[in-house]
Amino acid sequence: MLKLTSKDNVNIKNAVKLKNGAKFRRRSGLFIAEGLRICRDAVLSGAEIESTFVTEDALTKHRQIIEEICEKSSNSFIVTDEIFRLLSDTQSPQGVLCVIKTLDKVTEFDTIKNGGKFLALENIQDPNNLGTVLRTAEAFGVDGVILTEDCCDIYNPKVVRGSMGAVFRLPFVTVDGIPSFLAENPGLESFAAVVDGSAEKLDKISFPQSCVAVIGNEGSGLRDSTVSACSHRLTIPMRGRAESLNASAAASIIIWEMIK
Amino acid sequence: MLKLTSKDNVNIKNAVKLKNGAKFRRRSGLFIAEGLRICRDAVLSGAEIESTFVTEDALTKHRQIIEEICEKSSNSFIVTDEIFRLLSDTQSPQGVLCVIKTLDKVTEFDTIKNGGKFLALENIQDPNNLGTVLRTAEAFGVDGVILTEDCCDIYNPKVVRGSMGAVFRLPFVTVDGIPSFLAENPGLESFAAVVDGSAEKLDKISFPQSCVAVIGNEGSGLRDSTVSACSHRLTIPMRGRAESLNASAAASIIIWEMIK
Repeated sequence: MLKLTSKDNVNIKNAVKLKNGAKFRRRSGLFIAEGLRICRDAVLSGAEIESTFVTEDALTKHRQIIEEICEKSSNSFIVTDEIFRLLSDTQSPQGVLCVIKTLDKVTEFDTIKNGGKFLALENIQDPNNLGTVLRTAEAFGVDGVILTEDCCDIYNPKVVRGSMGAVFRLPFVTVDGIPSFLAENPGLESFAAVVDGSAEKLDKISFPQSCVAVIGNEGSGLRDSTVSACSHRLTIPMRGRAESLNASAAASIIIWEMIK
Repeated sequence: MLKLTSKDNVNIKNAVKLKNGAKFRRRSGLFIAEGLRICRDAVLSGAEIESTFVTEDALTKHRQIIEEICEKSSNSFIVTDEIFRLLSDTQSPQGVLCVIKTLDKVTEFDTIKNGGKFLALENIQDPNNLGTVLRTAEAFGVDGVILTEDCCDIYNPKVVRGSMGAVFRLPFVTVDGIPSFLAENPGLESFAAVVDGSAEKLDKISFPQSCVAVIGNEGSGLRDSTVSACSHRLTIPMRGRAESLNASAAASIIIWEMIK
């Protein structure tokens, strides 16, 4: 394996840019997955791995798994701990990181025409929330996730990690806006999540075979135009003092009720 | 209001220590709440505020709310943006921060003797998870939260913020371990959350009037000794590929089912 010792090496520089910039990720069609488990997940999910960066230390500790990863990787590099820290997004890096080609999920998403249970996210900003929601959606077998363009980038390293690899496997599609998406898919019944006592109570709803639950921004919820475009409004009845739930907590409970 | 311009001022130094160290928080009986909304929440919840730090900018923008906060604060200081960044735990600080006395919640927790629905957390490490779980617990009216000593500090600034002020209001108690806590409260039926198809399915359980749901560490789940000490084992049935849920997602769904 080639050793890279300069932070000015072009592979290092590009990986740093992939870590930091959604625009660069989109333009290059690449993203980063960090950590032993998630890199292995990428291999098992058949993702196309462009390069793998490992530290000497990681290679000694986890040689077998890392060799499996590198076998599927077009390029593999050994880097110093110092350089790895430049690429890493975590406080205690494991010393393994892959640069992966973004997947074309659009064709997969034709399944939507055959019905199923979907989740739509509008303007979700926090990468930890988005990662958790994707992980939960996959755990319960949600058929696909629709994200508006103004959501946090699904290929943000924190999202990739928090999703526990769901980004590799879960069908998803990015749309301009929820109202136009709904207009194009008239067969889908849609449920806008709102904080409003007059909306349908989550525990009283019978979700139809083909439906989408729509969840909005952490601070401001769904846009009015999106709520109007949905066929139903749902609310999670609460008894306590808090005004609302964290977006990922609300999404988890809604997914659970929609699927169970 | 006194202006502090040196980062060597003792008030500044102590606040930085409160931000960074759980030990110092425990020893001094103080913690930090940051942000306009959460500081105001502290005032409304009747928390004892030792000092308030604000930037000139924040004071100009939010004079009325900040004056309300400072009225209830024993000391108030204006600090430069540079100093505020030393105290702050966020990337885009709002410029308002309170040092608050920790509350003695133990007596409140006598309610446990009168029954109710409780949540017990064992060795939860991630402050974002803990904050979210506390927020959800308050939203659904959980009667109290039991935390093991090895959980992330409930007064960690990230937990305080993520809880949306639930730490000010939710009864909680710290215990050495779950088995001894359960032994001391024999009237409580206990449900250990496990990933195991042979456990009772969450959607089939009728939670009794007086019970506690017990949730474990993000990576390793509950300790065997804790699972054995519980009267029931519960599992969240999943259909997808993920092996497990994020701890806060699992907790949200369990709280929802326990309370609804």
